[in-house]
Amino acid sequence: MAACIFCKIIKGEIPSMKLFESERTFAFLDIQPLSRGHSLIIPKHHGAKLHDIPDDQLHEILPVAKKIASAVGCEDYNILQNNGRIAHQVVDHVHFHMIPKPNEKEGLGIGWPAEALDKDKLNKLLEEIKSKM
Amino acid sequence: MAACIFCKIIKGEIPSMKLFESERTFAFLDIQPLSRGHSLIIPKHHGAKLHDIPDDQLHEILPVAKKIASAVGCEDYNILQNNGRIAHQVVDHVHFHMIPKPNEKEGLGIGWPAEALDKDKLNKLLEEIKSKM
Repeated sequence: MAACIFCKIIKGEIPSMKLFESERTFAFLDIQPLSRGHSLIIPKHHGAKLHDIPDDQLHEILPVAKKIASAVGCEDYNILQNNGRIAHQVVDHVHFHMIPKPNEKEGLGIGWPAEALDKDKLNKLLEEIKSKM
Repeated sequence: MAACIFCKIIKGEIPSMKLFESERTFAFLDIQPLSRGHSLIIPKHHGAKLHDIPDDQLHEILPVAKKIASAVGCEDYNILQNNGRIAHQVVDHVHFHMIPKPNEKEGLGIGWPAEALDKDKLNKLLEEIKSKM
């Protein structure tokens, strides 16, 4: 936590291009953007992955993402939050990307290797997940 | 809205593999999953894009995504919400994907065409966005 670059940004120990700050939430421009207006929205509560963050620290994240998307003025955009190196997470403090998608070339690239529908398999999985919720 | 497939799922007019339902939120398994446990979390409030949904209809989305990720038992996963055809949105009712990333092949594929750092350009943009927030 002491070494976390985003905790340092929140504390002001490292400068950032700050867009928004409240008691629980911080937002700033990504300095290596995928497109114009690419921003990061983070809970101030330190945690590496989404499931590490208490619910009440998450309520404001999407409203702030919305607010920034509207101010940037982008109609098309992706909201992305990555958990784990294999899932493209680089900094181990939960962060939500708001990435405008102005054209095919700029913004997030998405690969979608969908499986075919297998209803029996899914029904089994459904019961399994529900039993754990 | 009457023709919206997700509104019909919420009303029970179309069956779904339901994982969670509350006053404002609905969640179900994606039937063409990118990986085991791929789920959709949606606000009941109809709106095509994130900026169309009132803030108070969004507060529960991430806590529910968290809850499902924990029940699926995935350590690595992506949370993704797409706005606009060019950004890979197919159904025009806001939906958040919770996509487990068990290995390189399954789950979300991500392309990341980052720009080089241009501080002057970013500082100008920062002031422009802030003036609209």
